[in-house]
Amino acid sequence: MARSIKKHRSKAGLAPGTLVHVGEQLVDSARITVMNYDPDNCREEQLKSIEAAGEYRKADGTTWLNIDGLHQVEIIEKIGQIYDLHPLLLEDILNTNQRPKVEQFDNCIFAVVKMISYDDQKQCIQSEQVSFVLVENHVISFQERVGDVFGPVRDRIQNTRWRIRKLGADYLFYALVDSIVDYYFTVLDKIAERIEVLQDEVTLEPTEKTIQKIHELKREMLFFRRAVSPIREMVNSLQRDESKLISDATRIYLRDVYDHTIQVTEAIETYREMIGGLHDTYLSSISNRMNAVMKVLTIIATIFIPLTFVAGIYGMNFDYMPELHWRWSYPAVWIVMAAMFVVMMLYFKKKKWL
Amino acid sequence: MARSIKKHRSKAGLAPGTLVHVGEQLVDSARITVMNYDPDNCREEQLKSIEAAGEYRKADGTTWLNIDGLHQVEIIEKIGQIYDLHPLLLEDILNTNQRPKVEQFDNCIFAVVKMISYDDQKQCIQSEQVSFVLVENHVISFQERVGDVFGPVRDRIQNTRWRIRKLGADYLFYALVDSIVDYYFTVLDKIAERIEVLQDEVTLEPTEKTIQKIHELKREMLFFRRAVSPIREMVNSLQRDESKLISDATRIYLRDVYDHTIQVTEAIETYREMIGGLHDTYLSSISNRMNAVMKVLTIIATIFIPLTFVAGIYGMNFDYMPELHWRWSYPAVWIVMAAMFVVMMLYFKKKKWL
Amino acid sequence: MARSIKKHRSKAGLAPGTLVHVGEQLVDSARITVMNYDPDNCREEQLKSIEAAGEYRKADGTTWLNIDGLHQVEIIEKIGQIYDLHPLLLEDILNTNQRPKVEQFDNCIFAVVKMISYDDQKQCIQSEQVSFVLVENHVISFQERVGDVFGPVRDRIQNTRWRIRKLGADYLFYALVDSIVDYYFTVLDKIAERIEVLQDEVTLEPTEKTIQKIHELKREMLFFRRAVSPIREMVNSLQRDESKLISDATRIYLRDVYDHTIQVTEAIETYREMIGGLHDTYLSSISNRMNAVMKVLTIIATIFIPLTFVAGIYGMNFDYMPELHWRWSYPAVWIVMAAMFVVMMLYFKKKKWL
Amino acid sequence: MARSIKKHRSKAGLAPGTLVHVGEQLVDSARITVMNYDPDNCREEQLKSIEAAGEYRKADGTTWLNIDGLHQVEIIEKIGQIYDLHPLLLEDILNTNQRPKVEQFDNCIFAVVKMISYDDQKQCIQSEQVSFVLVENHVISFQERVGDVFGPVRDRIQNTRWRIRKLGADYLFYALVDSIVDYYFTVLDKIAERIEVLQDEVTLEPTEKTIQKIHELKREMLFFRRAVSPIREMVNSLQRDESKLISDATRIYLRDVYDHTIQVTEAIETYREMIGGLHDTYLSSISNRMNAVMKVLTIIATIFIPLTFVAGIYGMNFDYMPELHWRWSYPAVWIVMAAMFVVMMLYFKKKKWL
Amino acid sequence: MARSIKKHRSKAGLAPGTLVHVGEQLVDSARITVMNYDPDNCREEQLKSIEAAGEYRKADGTTWLNIDGLHQVEIIEKIGQIYDLHPLLLEDILNTNQRPKVEQFDNCIFAVVKMISYDDQKQCIQSEQVSFVLVENHVISFQERVGDVFGPVRDRIQNTRWRIRKLGADYLFYALVDSIVDYYFTVLDKIAERIEVLQDEVTLEPTEKTIQKIHELKREMLFFRRAVSPIREMVNSLQRDESKLISDATRIYLRDVYDHTIQVTEAIETYREMIGGLHDTYLSSISNRMNAVMKVLTIIATIFIPLTFVAGIYGMNFDYMPELHWRWSYPAVWIVMAAMFVVMMLYFKKKKWL
Repeated sequence: MARSIKKHRSKAGLAPGTLVHVGEQLVDSARITVMNYDPDNCREEQLKSIEAAGEYRKADGTTWLNIDGLHQVEIIEKIGQIYDLHPLLLEDILNTNQRPKVEQFDNCIFAVVKMISYDDQKQCIQSEQVSFVLVENHVISFQERVGDVFGPVRDRIQNTRWRIRKLGADYLFYALVDSIVDYYFTVLDKIAERIEVLQDEVTLEPTEKTIQKIHELKREMLFFRRAVSPIREMVNSLQRDESKLISDATRIYLRDVYDHTIQVTEAIETYREMIGGLHDTYLSSISNRMNAVMKVLTIIATIFIPLTFVAGIYGMNFDYMPELHWRWSYPAVWIVMAAMFVVMMLYFKKKKWL
Repeated sequence: MARSIKKHRSKAGLAPGTLVHVGEQLVDSARITVMNYDPDNCREEQLKSIEAAGEYRKADGTTWLNIDGLHQVEIIEKIGQIYDLHPLLLEDILNTNQRPKVEQFDNCIFAVVKMISYDDQKQCIQSEQVSFVLVENHVISFQERVGDVFGPVRDRIQNTRWRIRKLGADYLFYALVDSIVDYYFTVLDKIAERIEVLQDEVTLEPTEKTIQKIHELKREMLFFRRAVSPIREMVNSLQRDESKLISDATRIYLRDVYDHTIQVTEAIETYREMIGGLHDTYLSSISNRMNAVMKVLTIIATIFIPLTFVAGIYGMNFDYMPELHWRWSYPAVWIVMAAMFVVMMLYFKKKKWL
Repeated sequence: MARSIKKHRSKAGLAPGTLVHVGEQLVDSARITVMNYDPDNCREEQLKSIEAAGEYRKADGTTWLNIDGLHQVEIIEKIGQIYDLHPLLLEDILNTNQRPKVEQFDNCIFAVVKMISYDDQKQCIQSEQVSFVLVENHVISFQERVGDVFGPVRDRIQNTRWRIRKLGADYLFYALVDSIVDYYFTVLDKIAERIEVLQDEVTLEPTEKTIQKIHELKREMLFFRRAVSPIREMVNSLQRDESKLISDATRIYLRDVYDHTIQVTEAIETYREMIGGLHDTYLSSISNRMNAVMKVLTIIATIFIPLTFVAGIYGMNFDYMPELHWRWSYPAVWIVMAAMFVVMMLYFKKKKWL
Repeated sequence: MARSIKKHRSKAGLAPGTLVHVGEQLVDSARITVMNYDPDNCREEQLKSIEAAGEYRKADGTTWLNIDGLHQVEIIEKIGQIYDLHPLLLEDILNTNQRPKVEQFDNCIFAVVKMISYDDQKQCIQSEQVSFVLVENHVISFQERVGDVFGPVRDRIQNTRWRIRKLGADYLFYALVDSIVDYYFTVLDKIAERIEVLQDEVTLEPTEKTIQKIHELKREMLFFRRAVSPIREMVNSLQRDESKLISDATRIYLRDVYDHTIQVTEAIETYREMIGGLHDTYLSSISNRMNAVMKVLTIIATIFIPLTFVAGIYGMNFDYMPELHWRWSYPAVWIVMAAMFVVMMLYFKKKKWL
Repeated sequence: MARSIKKHRSKAGLAPGTLVHVGEQLVDSARITVMNYDPDNCREEQLKSIEAAGEYRKADGTTWLNIDGLHQVEIIEKIGQIYDLHPLLLEDILNTNQRPKVEQFDNCIFAVVKMISYDDQKQCIQSEQVSFVLVENHVISFQERVGDVFGPVRDRIQNTRWRIRKLGADYLFYALVDSIVDYYFTVLDKIAERIEVLQDEVTLEPTEKTIQKIHELKREMLFFRRAVSPIREMVNSLQRDESKLISDATRIYLRDVYDHTIQVTEAIETYREMIGGLHDTYLSSISNRMNAVMKVLTIIATIFIPLTFVAGIYGMNFDYMPELHWRWSYPAVWIVMAAMFVVMMLYFKKKKWL
């Protein structure tokens, strides 16, 4: 099964706000990168230790602090101190089983989003939790591992010709969320391909594996939908909220993200319906196969059982069976049997079994 | 499969507001037509270049600017400059995977609608995205290709006897949306015909293709519903909005569009239910066929296997089988077998298998 | 199929407000009747032409103008002039594919309701659109054909002992809608009978026709529900509205109509569930029949194939088969075969196949 | 079928407010009982005629007037006069097809509830409509027949040690509704038993009757849910309403009834899910049985058909068949056939068919 | 069946507020423990009688009174007197069929939660009702039996280094509810394991028991969801309420519980979908098995029935059958039969039946 059931590695028994990494360790050591830019300058740096991040706290312009890898709890703790973040917020960053959500704190906006990609080898959806903290002039992003879909955003920041350099941290926050949501369309296309492959398989040679693949795909879609649909309400609440951290100009862009999320959700629904159709086709294909098998059996048995009976009759050993001694009995029996055969064949033709 | 899964040709990685045409190029070069009218005059012109459209910007009366073909991004860009439109609005016009929606901007109302037609050859629904921008005294419409359902509206504009000449741009906008929605009924009738054809096929000679056609049709309906149902909320929000661009008189007409949309949605639901019924009928027809095959096999086997056994008995070569030497054994065996045959036939008659 | 798919005869391309009759012509020429009454007098008249209706416009008391037959567009147009009705309202009266609804205009309340009856011959639901216009002191009703369920209301108007004579046009409007809704119960009873007939058919002798009848009935229920359920919100909006045309006393009576509509809707839901049950019973009955056929085949084959084998053994022509020459071989073989038969029968008894 | 489809005996054609008993006549003549109590005294009386009820109208303390039997319309009419009740209210009391509801009138609260019991003999749910009218200091209850679940309430009234004596008519009203709702739990337990019986039947010996019983039970649950679920909104609206007839102290108790109704509804949902499970188990049990039958047929046929073929070979009468004359042919054939038998058996063992 | 249908042991007929224990008696005698703590001190004591609890009523700091075992009604009654609790609240504590809920009383907040655990032996979910009463500085918890998931909370109270010592009764109340909700994740993991076991069983060797296990598990999930989902609205209403008993700081923590509840609910939904998939896989596996059986039968019968017919022909005893006397007839027949065999095999190969 492509998607094994995710264990929850429950934190039951720990005090709330205790910082424990819940999830798999996906990198050896966390990588911390920082970008600081204003319309004229742009500085990018990979930090050796989290302490260095403190220097940027009071920097001018917009700062994007990105952390790849969550298992080093002390890093998260330190960032919490630098930016004065609520312990429950830090706990949520570390728990990678979060549901996408947005929460308003006094000094920041906290958002959790699922970055979805498609693993071509395992043929399944890969999900990585990305948390964003938007504080004044700063966006802090937390990823489970190195590698993301933010490349184009980085390029735009480095290049003066794009608006992003002129707009603040809220626009950066929007641009990052937008690039995650845009990537969902790429994943949708991969899934569409997989559905097409399965459609062929169901029609041409369905096996017991096919039904399992169909159910796996159905579950993938469920998983995908669950990752995407809360983003809708999330963006919605960002738009409505009166927080000063997000400007009106950026709110219009958020409306665009909202539209994209609806599009993704509808595509997922369509795919789910199509997968349901695959299931029906599979079942009816099984029935048809059974039907074909039964027809062969019936045709053969219906033709030869009566003929064998006729042969059996003249295999009897009675002393007084006049036909046995007639000259033309044997050819006559052959003719009778041929006639029976022809009648049967006509019957099957009429029934459209042949 | 009639409807292949639409690829999303994701724009992932592009800056928001970047104008890129997302969709197939359906015409060689864009065709720009303009109609300018007031109660007394009506001028229609096909523009050679988009620059000429600028002249109409300040024209008196009502102006309808129509663009067929979206792949020449510079045209859309130019219109954006002439009418001062938001970059996200232009981006939405170019992305033909939009969901029907209406958006209020400071200086305009922007609406996206799906124009649905039925392709008799491919037996599937064709969808074309039409975007409308309603600014003061102007309606700008963007279509993916030449050819639309606006002919009657054009006729009414050209003819002085119709009210449309006396009413403003908001009424024109309504009339265009209305003609798209009215055309949905024509498509519904085509689908109704196709359902009737499938009903006959399911009852008379269902094959494995039939189930696939049923699922295709189901998916078509899903696609149709998805194109139609957002129009309801769209019209609703137009009616409620306090925008000065739409007069109260036109709002009453929008209520009519709203009613039509509900009617279309309900018809779609009814058809979906009927297609579900086709599916059930297909499955039960498969079962019945299997039943019929089994009955033939059972009747033949049940009659002849026992008779063959009787013949087998008297084919044995024991030295001491007194019956073999009796004078009337052979006819007696025939009588016994005939009796068995009759009993079987009566049994099957009673069971209503014959 | 009892209910063929209704064609929409789309008006696509016509200007909104154009008066065109959409629907079948069901009467030769429209019949116009008028009743004018107050607590003391009651006058009933069949009008020769619609012009005569103008006289009643200023009459005292309550006036009920009833038009049977909609294809003579000029009559509707004339009434529109007499009562100063909005063109879209007139258009809706003529389009018999309307969904039940109520609309408030400045000078009137407009309501569309479906009058449902049951055609015993065709065994299907008949629907007729009835439109009501409630203006001060006047109720105008439009029906597609002669014949309705308003007989008892007419009787009550003609008879002084009933309250209806003392109450105004709003009460008359209520009484007419109420008599339509009350008649739904009669239709429900007809459907209940039909379900009972189908229940017997499914249990006793289900054929391929049965499943089609089940689906037809399901579709009838869908159609019925669609005709009934909008009445609920319709009555609701009448109760809430502040229109002066409806008095508070009548509003209490509308609450009663509302209750009845809920009752009808719930009955329809129950029937739908029962029809779903019929479908399941049908499928399981098909399976059981298949099972029965297979059992007969299995019993006969299982008994006689081994016996035939035994007979076959002693039909072999080997020179050295000692059993063939023993004195009691033949009876012994019979005993062996009888024993095999008994063992088989006991086995089937144990398996409860007999 | 346990629950035949209820006929609606429509009142179509009668004037609204006309008092006609809709339902079966369940008692010979109505029984009228009255209880009048205050903290110190309690008087219980069976009235000979409804006129005597008038005396209690102005009595001190709390009065409970109970009418068993609704077919004597004149009694209901008289009560309407004594307590000044709206004609539609009286009509609703007489129509026993009401849906549970609560209605506020100027001078009273009117409630309709279904009293549910379980008929062990017919194995179905029995429903009786109970209407309550709460006027100042008075509760009037109308039942279809003698016999109810109010015994414990009567006992508590007769016994001074209970609070009910000290609390007013609103508490009495609550206590009566509460005792009806509490009795639903008893009915739920009966249904639970019936589900357990059906579970055994489905697993051990499912017949065609079983599927019908499952559907009957499903319908019973539907009926039950329909009787119970409106009580929720009903109690809810009683709690919210500002009516002076219900004190704040009683409102807290109504919250309790509300909780119970939710519990009953959830239990019904669980049972419906379980009945759905029964249905699935039944279908898969039918499939398994078919499978078992087919296996027996296949095993027997697969073993003996090839063996019979071997015997058939040596039953041929060719002049030149050397094997026929060999000394050990006959035992050799037996050995070959035994070997074939063993191979077959091993094959079936491997396939786990034995 | 793992989960037998819970009986309701209805209290029908008892006065509301009558204290009767509804549920099984799970302990011999109730165990009463009390913890009293402030930032500096912590005292834990097991009380011999409930009278001793009265002393703590006026104690400083935060007091947690825990009662294990509900069948001794007098204990609950006494606590009701000490803390002045409403009789309906006490009744709800004793009725262990409550639905999770929260209720605001004048002097306290009352909450009912289900503590869920997984019984590895019986392979089913165990549920225990826990009621909380939050009064000023006091939390009173009522459990059905000894043993709970509060161990870690107790540890944190005993240890000065945790915040819980510094925070008040509302935080304690939160901590207790949180530890119950956290434990749900542990139960989810157990269920995930069980689903994996069933997945193997369905694929490898499905029996009739399997379908029953699937339905049991489905019912368990239903039961689980029912226990969990009301907590969501419960926590929600706690957050919104303006009660002074809960501080704003604690409200933020409650948001966290809310998130967890959503996560649990979504996991349950995913599992339900997976169980549905198991059901489908089971059914298609049954069909495939039937198919396999039929193929074996068809192959064997189709090969040997025609061969047996050929042998039968030459077993006939006609005097004039020239083939019988030809020298090479016998080998020729063998060759013919071998050819037929080969043709059949090729046919089956082509059909992919082998």
